[in-house]
Amino acid sequence: MIFRQLFDHESSTYTYLVADASTKDATIIDPVIEQVDRDLTLIRELGLQLKMILETHIHADHVTGSWELKQATKAEAVAGAGSKLACADRLLKDKETIRVGSLEFQALATPGHTDSCMSYYGHGRVFTGDALLIRGCGRTDFQQGSSKKLFHSIRNVLFRLPDETLVFPAHDYKGMNCSSIGEEKAHNPRLNLHIGEDEFVQIMASLNLSPPKKIAVAVPRNQSCGQPL
Amino acid sequence: MIFRQLFDHESSTYTYLVADASTKDATIIDPVIEQVDRDLTLIRELGLQLKMILETHIHADHVTGSWELKQATKAEAVAGAGSKLACADRLLKDKETIRVGSLEFQALATPGHTDSCMSYYGHGRVFTGDALLIRGCGRTDFQQGSSKKLFHSIRNVLFRLPDETLVFPAHDYKGMNCSSIGEEKAHNPRLNLHIGEDEFVQIMASLNLSPPKKIAVAVPRNQSCGQPL
Repeated sequence: MIFRQLFDHESSTYTYLVADASTKDATIIDPVIEQVDRDLTLIRELGLQLKMILETHIHADHVTGSWELKQATKAEAVAGAGSKLACADRLLKDKETIRVGSLEFQALATPGHTDSCMSYYGHGRVFTGDALLIRGCGRTDFQQGSSKKLFHSIRNVLFRLPDETLVFPAHDYKGMNCSSIGEEKAHNPRLNLHIGEDEFVQIMASLNLSPPKKIAVAVPRNQSCGQPL
Repeated sequence: MIFRQLFDHESSTYTYLVADASTKDATIIDPVIEQVDRDLTLIRELGLQLKMILETHIHADHVTGSWELKQATKAEAVAGAGSKLACADRLLKDKETIRVGSLEFQALATPGHTDSCMSYYGHGRVFTGDALLIRGCGRTDFQQGSSKKLFHSIRNVLFRLPDETLVFPAHDYKGMNCSSIGEEKAHNPRLNLHIGEDEFVQIMASLNLSPPKKIAVAVPRNQSCGQPL
């Protein structure tokens, strides 16, 4: 397996390039529009064929590179079923299998940050989007945010994966590149196993965060896979 | 093996935490002083014992966290022999073996960016400091910089490692997290196998870069492992 973690400094977004080293079939998870040229160069230099663009959710903090990558390659755009994206070539249901060459990943519905949040699990890694972050979690105060749903997604879906599973989120703001399920169960200050649902809902309700700067532009544009409106 | 790549946004420096998952013995490569609290928290949460602090060279762009980490742990500070650091507990020679629990790495002298640059190779990875960067290389226009030495280090030392070896540098400015020896042999615009020594020396001589902002503070302070002067 070829695996690359890529970072967009402006939005602190992680993009992941995952490929079958034998067949060269590749997928990219959560591409950022400003980084499409960088990502296409890397794909070409590694000799990969981009077959699939996976979104973990409809982002509010950056515009996806999905539409531009589709124009430049033959990749299909794939997202969670809840997102009802007219632009998506395929909408995934919970527990559906995704194939990239001989690699298999499982889509896991992990709503709460938005209704359509999907995590992708396989090969000892889980790509958690904005559901589970490193020592944190996604916000639940806009789009279809629900702290109760997010608590369920993390505690009853993600935290049931093996402890050694590496957690690769869509963002990090402190320079951490990954975590593990075991670590988050023990050390996540909002969601470790000592914290109950009511306490978590209370923590999330008291965050008082400013709206994401790009939300008014990013959400509608991401609903069309990043195509100019 | 436990492996974490950590990033300092201000200096775009990568720090690496590498540990034996069984014995919990750990080393940290190129820590940054502003990130010592983050790094100590992670070391504690992972249940690791920091035994060694490895420097790839005397940095000019940030102050090392080595001295502060030594105060907080029982780790020894280790650097390349050329650096002649009075503060170092151990100075490594070319080809010397470093042991972290049951993990073994080989120190490889890769001078050119500075005289004392060391790379560390093992377990399919090479930590290249400021010698080889992703699609680039370290500067050769200050400290003991020498384009001829750097050309030799990269082409005759690093490029002789297996092509699939993952390259983890001390910096990246474009959001790339790693590369491979094979990729750099093919695609490094300054040092791919089609470029000769004279052309490389010419490329490096024509860069006309500004001095690193922190060089006047960072170099003398790093010569004492980051201890306040």
